[in-house]
Amino acid sequence: MTVSIAYLGPPGTYTEQAALAYVSQVHKVMGGAILCPCPSIAQTLRAISQAQAQLAVVPVENSIEGGVAVTLDMLWQLDTLQIQLALVMPIAHSLLSCAPSLEGVQTVYSHPQALAQCQGWLEQFLPKVQLIPTNSTTEALQQIEQDRSAGAIASPRAAQLYNLPALASAINDYPDNCTRFWVIGKGDSLASKHQVSPGGTHTSIAFSLAANVPGALVKPLQVFAQRGINLSRIESRPSKRALGDYLFFIDLEAGVGSLTVQSALVELAAYTEVLKLFGSYSVLCIN
Amino acid sequence: MTVSIAYLGPPGTYTEQAALAYVSQVHKVMGGAILCPCPSIAQTLRAISQAQAQLAVVPVENSIEGGVAVTLDMLWQLDTLQIQLALVMPIAHSLLSCAPSLEGVQTVYSHPQALAQCQGWLEQFLPKVQLIPTNSTTEALQQIEQDRSAGAIASPRAAQLYNLPALASAINDYPDNCTRFWVIGKGDSLASKHQVSPGGTHTSIAFSLAANVPGALVKPLQVFAQRGINLSRIESRPSKRALGDYLFFIDLEAGVGSLTVQSALVELAAYTEVLKLFGSYSVLCIN
Repeated sequence: MTVSIAYLGPPGTYTEQAALAYVSQVHKVMGGAILCPCPSIAQTLRAISQAQAQLAVVPVENSIEGGVAVTLDMLWQLDTLQIQLALVMPIAHSLLSCAPSLEGVQTVYSHPQALAQCQGWLEQFLPKVQLIPTNSTTEALQQIEQDRSAGAIASPRAAQLYNLPALASAINDYPDNCTRFWVIGKGDSLASKHQVSPGGTHTSIAFSLAANVPGALVKPLQVFAQRGINLSRIESRPSKRALGDYLFFIDLEAGVGSLTVQSALVELAAYTEVLKLFGSYSVLCIN
Repeated sequence: MTVSIAYLGPPGTYTEQAALAYVSQVHKVMGGAILCPCPSIAQTLRAISQAQAQLAVVPVENSIEGGVAVTLDMLWQLDTLQIQLALVMPIAHSLLSCAPSLEGVQTVYSHPQALAQCQGWLEQFLPKVQLIPTNSTTEALQQIEQDRSAGAIASPRAAQLYNLPALASAINDYPDNCTRFWVIGKGDSLASKHQVSPGGTHTSIAFSLAANVPGALVKPLQVFAQRGINLSRIESRPSKRALGDYLFFIDLEAGVGSLTVQSALVELAAYTEVLKLFGSYSVLCIN
């Protein structure tokens, strides 16, 4: 049976690379997959809630630039989504350009996160170029096809896919640059029926707190500490109600199959205003 | 005596508006000020550490879009900076364009945060336009001067400054949209000598944790909870060492002048790997 997978496109983005790895490593056992590129993360996730796709692949966090705010905000807003799997993928950026050498590059286009991840390299090797943000690393490629003095920061796969020359490779400032993606479906999605990730090793939750009192966040964190459950991540996002009012997104290093986690979540509900469970899942490292 | 103030420019940005309000409400008592626009937040803060400016005004957090990552990362990296004052300013976006009406607008340019803050309005009133990110809200204005079918999301002040017509005002999705800015100087800066903010009502700190063990973050938070010190904000940022390894940035609703805060910081040092104090300061609301 064929599954439709929405992803942050267009083809050639790192998210497409993650989606392809997911299909080749996990999904082939369940039959074929059709990849559907979407223009934004919001639209990628809405494709599931509007039943235009069965799964979605979106970036969650980069090891250098941090969380992807819109992914967290949409997961909170679109109540029915569940995380099926996490993918961790190393990121190596290339500088693509039709210029004969680095000296010929006058402007560099890319997604703001990619520009930020190569900031040191750009300051060292291209100190005078103008940096111009684009909506995706692939969108940047349109510029270099039209202008020989333009460069774009994108993936080696994009270079191959669009047949564009790379002037420099692995230009990211930190070699241990990884991005974590989530494969997301509806609570009753195909993937969960097929038990891709039975039980899961990680659990993602988010909550708001009723009162802004000293120590309001201590109680929720104690619930996990007392039970020896490690948190692999905590991130605050504005609740959008007022400056200083937050939602907290937490990843636990344990699955909801565990009775310890279940008792922690029951206790946690007493200390939070709204508590949402985004599912338990495994983590797959892609090379 | 004249003080030089670096800010995230060019003229017409919200940060310039915050810097102007700072000068008119606080700094005039100390003599004149020269505002120096910088092309990025990193360069704005480096202007102080390289002694090209005495103070810097940078955005820290928006009530809808959340923290400004580069401000936190730079403060951690450039060890000598101290926060002198926080400014909270309401944000009301306008759609500027030389098109005769909304129907004539085919592309909308702006900083990604401004585009995100008006997402709902754009989907309702301009569902078919192409959204194009720029480095600042002011940079977007260059496009509309050249192209009558282009629009830019920017401040009412930018409309006035560059003499551009507004097709719509207050188009942000959440009316309670505020941005918090920090006025930053060196530890021994002019502002601290003049005691703009003697003692301060808020304190900002950041720390890394040595071990990734269950509850590692509980101890630091307990230090404040036990003393009744409220945290107005907690934000995690990647340490850039490995995925899942974080720095924590915390704002306390108390000044370091307080003995309670001082004892909390002494105890906190025992539970953290590196602990940095970014200063105590007051909060000024701008209308």
